[in-house]
Amino acid sequence: MTFARRLAAEGLGTALLLAMVVGSGIMGERLAGGNVAIALLANALATGAGLMVLILVFGPVSGAHFNPAVTLSCAARGQFGWRLVPAYCAVQIAGAFIGVAAADLMFGEALFSASQHVRTGWAQWWSEFVASFGLLAVIWGCQRLRAETTALAVGGYILSAYWFTASTSFANPAVTLARAATDTFAGIRPVDTGAFIVAQLLGAGAATWFFGWLMPPRSEMQL
Amino acid sequence: MTFARRLAAEGLGTALLLAMVVGSGIMGERLAGGNVAIALLANALATGAGLMVLILVFGPVSGAHFNPAVTLSCAARGQFGWRLVPAYCAVQIAGAFIGVAAADLMFGEALFSASQHVRTGWAQWWSEFVASFGLLAVIWGCQRLRAETTALAVGGYILSAYWFTASTSFANPAVTLARAATDTFAGIRPVDTGAFIVAQLLGAGAATWFFGWLMPPRSEMQL
Amino acid sequence: MTFARRLAAEGLGTALLLAMVVGSGIMGERLAGGNVAIALLANALATGAGLMVLILVFGPVSGAHFNPAVTLSCAARGQFGWRLVPAYCAVQIAGAFIGVAAADLMFGEALFSASQHVRTGWAQWWSEFVASFGLLAVIWGCQRLRAETTALAVGGYILSAYWFTASTSFANPAVTLARAATDTFAGIRPVDTGAFIVAQLLGAGAATWFFGWLMPPRSEMQL
Amino acid sequence: MTFARRLAAEGLGTALLLAMVVGSGIMGERLAGGNVAIALLANALATGAGLMVLILVFGPVSGAHFNPAVTLSCAARGQFGWRLVPAYCAVQIAGAFIGVAAADLMFGEALFSASQHVRTGWAQWWSEFVASFGLLAVIWGCQRLRAETTALAVGGYILSAYWFTASTSFANPAVTLARAATDTFAGIRPVDTGAFIVAQLLGAGAATWFFGWLMPPRSEMQL
Repeated sequence: MTFARRLAAEGLGTALLLAMVVGSGIMGERLAGGNVAIALLANALATGAGLMVLILVFGPVSGAHFNPAVTLSCAARGQFGWRLVPAYCAVQIAGAFIGVAAADLMFGEALFSASQHVRTGWAQWWSEFVASFGLLAVIWGCQRLRAETTALAVGGYILSAYWFTASTSFANPAVTLARAATDTFAGIRPVDTGAFIVAQLLGAGAATWFFGWLMPPRSEMQL
Repeated sequence: MTFARRLAAEGLGTALLLAMVVGSGIMGERLAGGNVAIALLANALATGAGLMVLILVFGPVSGAHFNPAVTLSCAARGQFGWRLVPAYCAVQIAGAFIGVAAADLMFGEALFSASQHVRTGWAQWWSEFVASFGLLAVIWGCQRLRAETTALAVGGYILSAYWFTASTSFANPAVTLARAATDTFAGIRPVDTGAFIVAQLLGAGAATWFFGWLMPPRSEMQL
Repeated sequence: MTFARRLAAEGLGTALLLAMVVGSGIMGERLAGGNVAIALLANALATGAGLMVLILVFGPVSGAHFNPAVTLSCAARGQFGWRLVPAYCAVQIAGAFIGVAAADLMFGEALFSASQHVRTGWAQWWSEFVASFGLLAVIWGCQRLRAETTALAVGGYILSAYWFTASTSFANPAVTLARAATDTFAGIRPVDTGAFIVAQLLGAGAATWFFGWLMPPRSEMQL
Repeated sequence: MTFARRLAAEGLGTALLLAMVVGSGIMGERLAGGNVAIALLANALATGAGLMVLILVFGPVSGAHFNPAVTLSCAARGQFGWRLVPAYCAVQIAGAFIGVAAADLMFGEALFSASQHVRTGWAQWWSEFVASFGLLAVIWGCQRLRAETTALAVGGYILSAYWFTASTSFANPAVTLARAATDTFAGIRPVDTGAFIVAQLLGAGAATWFFGWLMPPRSEMQL
């Protein structure tokens, strides 16, 4: 029963995250009169604030990963059971697609449609590496702070990363897959998702390894 | 005497909330030179920040519902007396209309005027269902966190929901009724309010039911 | 010596506040290409975030009033000595003018110049009444919360009030006087300051009286 | 080993800070369609939110100076060993250049290129004096608050200072040097860096001296 609750929280949270990302992207683009910076400003504020809230709400139940890269990183550092990883990733991906459909429905778009938004090339891949490295750095860097502080930090990081990376910081394989299924502002061509996910996993892995040295478990530390 | 204080806090808080929503909508539209995204950005920031503040200020006195859907949800989960519900809803609605008049007066508009802003159709109603589901999810999800954290979460959620829903997230029956009485940026045609309120109550009810299972009272929980 | 520190903190804090208000107004107007909403968005974010920071920094030393209306309200509720009021108000006003000069100097404007920005009429005065009522409501409403929370609430309130009042929420007699001395975005004609200050004092007085009943000292309270 | 961790944290944090500043500047300028205010709004939000996050993440390891002026100020007040200053400054500068290269790579720019952005004259230098005075005022003013509060205050200050100073508030010698190496939105001509750094050190020194009197170590204080 408890495990059912954790999976439900993880799936619902990821669905709401995607509704925020995709919905605010559509709204921003429709209202911004062609000025992409204004659309992205709305998209970034809505996503950053919304993600902070979702971590506050679902963190106490499921940990609020909403992201296979985070789940894998937690497992790699021994803070999450490997045998739970497949179920977590499955509900994250399923939730992400449900969230995309929910957003498209709110704006009168087709539930699913293949995106035609080209996102490819070394600059984009390097951006996803940096974005994912930074996200995991924030998560591991904040692990000894209060849960509320971590939520604020992750939300603030994503708000920033939408702007300082050329890819607008997907940094999440489940989000990447689901955003391929909406031909709107936040979309990504299905053919471009593979390289994005590889870059994300490499960036997340590098941060996991580096912070394992930089901030070891408290028992080993001599600050 | 204490009950008078609670009603006064609830009414004044709702009045200030509506002054924020309607006033910042008028200001945004007047200054934005036709770019609706910039007007909505100002409207969303003013409402999100303002709502956070109002919950901090009035929460300790009245609980800072400002919203009949929240009051009903609290009663349904046994955290608010049913016999107080009518008085709470009455001052929320009265406060909401007073707040609209206060805002219209600040901007030299008629105190009250029927809005001509069309907001109807399944996309809008589904948006209100999602917006209200999310709002109650935030409130019940944060119930074990500090009151300051809940205020931040609700304000952050509304900032996000202004953008990720197609209806700009009314999510509040008292707010919906009062916004029908101002023919400005934030308005809604009186004829459209009924369906909005039905969608809001359905969304709020669904979240109340779901979070009753997801996050039961601590005594029943085995996390 | 301690009293000298308090006066220095109050004067320096008010100077920095005015530098933020006036400086970000000039910068916003220069860069916004004629779109006043974008200029005000920058002005409001810079002022709201900056005021929060100044309260965090100077609050432990002087209480971080930066505002004669706040000082008077504290004295009226017995939380500040009446005999200190003249000195506090004097350094607030002096600091405010120094801050205006500092900002004008940063942007290559004349140190002081009489503003030609017309701000008059009942809509403006009612706006200042509401803005000041709200500011004191926030201060008295948060008095039992942590100091950090009050700083966040006051900053968030000002960000919101820049948008939901027609006057952009001066809400401060010292700020009003000093803003008459800069003919830039944030200015106000000297002849318009008197009525603004009257409206501010009435609004602040009304909130002080009302919250004296709504949130009495803890010893008298039966919540 | 511990010292290696501190240097690594300081270098990585400064690199990420520069990636945020330079990357969001490029993104803002590319998308804003010529409206510099919108570009600066994105730049300021990304930098303010990002800096808050970096202080939360790296503060517990290295103190999160990211700034030779901060390191020198801490040493001058006896809270940081003088013999560690050269190493801290060296990794800050090295990290800053690495961050610039990382950002330029994300956006397909040359790794390094001399900026042609003219930033000179008394108005600019006075702006840097004020910006650096304010930054150190925030740091010393918050020294007795929780670390999370300091992070919020510094981030909020920088968001504000981007707008209220004419120079957009570099306030950091390492940042100034590195921003000379990118011919993009955030750049500064190499020939202009010297006077900026002098103004920064003077402003930081003045705040260090003044707050040494205003907020002495707790043992000497009689508030």
